[in-house]
Amino acid sequence: MTIILDAMGSDAHPEPEIEAALISAETFGEEIILVGQEDVLRPKLDARNSKKLPVTIVHASDVLEMGEKAVDDSKRKPNYSMAVGLRLVIEGRGRAFVSAGNTGGVMFNALRSGSLGRIPGVMRPALTQPFPTRTGKCVVLDTGANAECRPDFLLQFALMGSLYAQHVMKIANPRVGLIANGEEKGKGNQLVKDTYPLLENSGLNFIGNVEGKEIFRGEVDVAVTDGFTGNVMLKSVEAVAELIFELLRKELTATLPSKLGAMLARPAFRKLRRMTSAEEIGATLLLGVDGLVFVGHGRSNAKALVSAIRLARETADTNLLNEMRQGIQEIAARPAPTSAI
Amino acid sequence: MTIILDAMGSDAHPEPEIEAALISAETFGEEIILVGQEDVLRPKLDARNSKKLPVTIVHASDVLEMGEKAVDDSKRKPNYSMAVGLRLVIEGRGRAFVSAGNTGGVMFNALRSGSLGRIPGVMRPALTQPFPTRTGKCVVLDTGANAECRPDFLLQFALMGSLYAQHVMKIANPRVGLIANGEEKGKGNQLVKDTYPLLENSGLNFIGNVEGKEIFRGEVDVAVTDGFTGNVMLKSVEAVAELIFELLRKELTATLPSKLGAMLARPAFRKLRRMTSAEEIGATLLLGVDGLVFVGHGRSNAKALVSAIRLARETADTNLLNEMRQGIQEIAARPAPTSAI
Repeated sequence: MTIILDAMGSDAHPEPEIEAALISAETFGEEIILVGQEDVLRPKLDARNSKKLPVTIVHASDVLEMGEKAVDDSKRKPNYSMAVGLRLVIEGRGRAFVSAGNTGGVMFNALRSGSLGRIPGVMRPALTQPFPTRTGKCVVLDTGANAECRPDFLLQFALMGSLYAQHVMKIANPRVGLIANGEEKGKGNQLVKDTYPLLENSGLNFIGNVEGKEIFRGEVDVAVTDGFTGNVMLKSVEAVAELIFELLRKELTATLPSKLGAMLARPAFRKLRRMTSAEEIGATLLLGVDGLVFVGHGRSNAKALVSAIRLARETADTNLLNEMRQGIQEIAARPAPTSAI
Repeated sequence: MTIILDAMGSDAHPEPEIEAALISAETFGEEIILVGQEDVLRPKLDARNSKKLPVTIVHASDVLEMGEKAVDDSKRKPNYSMAVGLRLVIEGRGRAFVSAGNTGGVMFNALRSGSLGRIPGVMRPALTQPFPTRTGKCVVLDTGANAECRPDFLLQFALMGSLYAQHVMKIANPRVGLIANGEEKGKGNQLVKDTYPLLENSGLNFIGNVEGKEIFRGEVDVAVTDGFTGNVMLKSVEAVAELIFELLRKELTATLPSKLGAMLARPAFRKLRRMTSAEEIGATLLLGVDGLVFVGHGRSNAKALVSAIRLARETADTNLLNEMRQGIQEIAARPAPTSAI
């Protein structure tokens, strides 16, 4: 089965996309459909596809002009690469869609009338990001889809994140935490205070409020928050990791002994850098959409896109979507948590 | 002039406090008053103060029992070390108060009736934390004092942070940013959207919305946010830095070449670790209180407390408090920004 790749997504498109498609086809034996302007893509792909790998092109005639915005301007462009790519998923021609384009644009095109839409019962899809931890991964949601949230959205994020952790991360009884400014019950802004009792009565394995240290020490599997806080957190963490590695590089080339030391320790640095780099994490899942939609960093290079495609494949190999459809229905059929107390 | 140090603050009190007081007195030639239970402190201090350094004790008869909380239970304890220490500042016996105790407890005791209180005109004091960046520091506020904020609070945080950057960091025209989930105007939750126009019309050097990358790349001097988001951000950044250094240590001792490399590169690692460690950052200023009050990590060791005392000294050497008193008054006298459009 095929993965659909938006060929017009990344800042440097379409070169990273073409390269990633070829590498993925060769490495995973996965068919890739590149979606974008055929006249641009065809000569570049043909020039590089000497091995006749299963990478094909589906033409998307609409493009965004300079200064046009993915969210506002793709409304008038039914044949924009995102829209065309998502249609291929609806038509069953691919099992997941991957784009390094604008997140809001992908969301808009996935949720617009006639597109994939939400899994029945889902109030708000959430950007779902696995963070590296001391012991593995912690999935954080929402990292940016919904800047304003209600307590019942966060409750549903917890359920969706739990299902993700069970079926994709293979964790039997995922520990769910609520991101707050302190671990004690009673800490938090109004949203957190109102969400806490809903999670306590949710039937999920709720461990209470969590902070950065619980997340990065691997003491929680699913951490829920509103999309504003989650996004600020994600970007701060990425930026500080980048700064540390940059300074490390600088310091390690400052003196001759440290240069030699750095050379000897290079494999160790590489391993660590990989663990925390966006290139390895690849993409964020738009969880709650009725189809597998992944959004990568605009700055994605080919390597990052290969990781994104690998993540899409691995997720598509699970039963996540069916489990989500069923899990959301079961919860919807139960009495509201507050009235169940 | 003297610095007042809460001797009962840190998790491991009073040993780190006593050691920090002695080191600071010796290094900076600063008098230190330790505030706490004299019968506990006296023998420990006398045993270690063979050089007769200017470290004295002021007795605080009230202590928190096991399970008592600084915020709730210090209400009934007028002679709790925080309350006594802050009184010494009011009485002019010290120019700053430093505690590694509970942040809420310090805030409560600084703001309670008869204590230092707020600088006239200040709506809400904010925890003010300098973050290390590629080029120096960016001061972030609020990192935890006010979980719920209004736009006018954030406007005032921007003003207070600007005055701090001018008078403590010696930056002539500090760049002020508003922390958001995207740089573009229009991004943000409702609080950010409502705060943006206030900052645009504030007369401050407002550069717009900022994310982690602007902060850690050193592209902004003052970054304002609500205390919930700021606290989540601060703790996530601390936790990810800790994880990276832990993994680095582990990887670097995994093989013989990497061990040797690590040895050669040790000075470089040390330098970097120092830059990002809580031990060096020391303490957070409770900006807006009518006196200099610093709160350190509960996990502070002596070294972290020495950094906190150094920060308190350096801040006390500036004219920050007077500039704040004057700056807040000037703004209060101006017509409201919204009506000035």
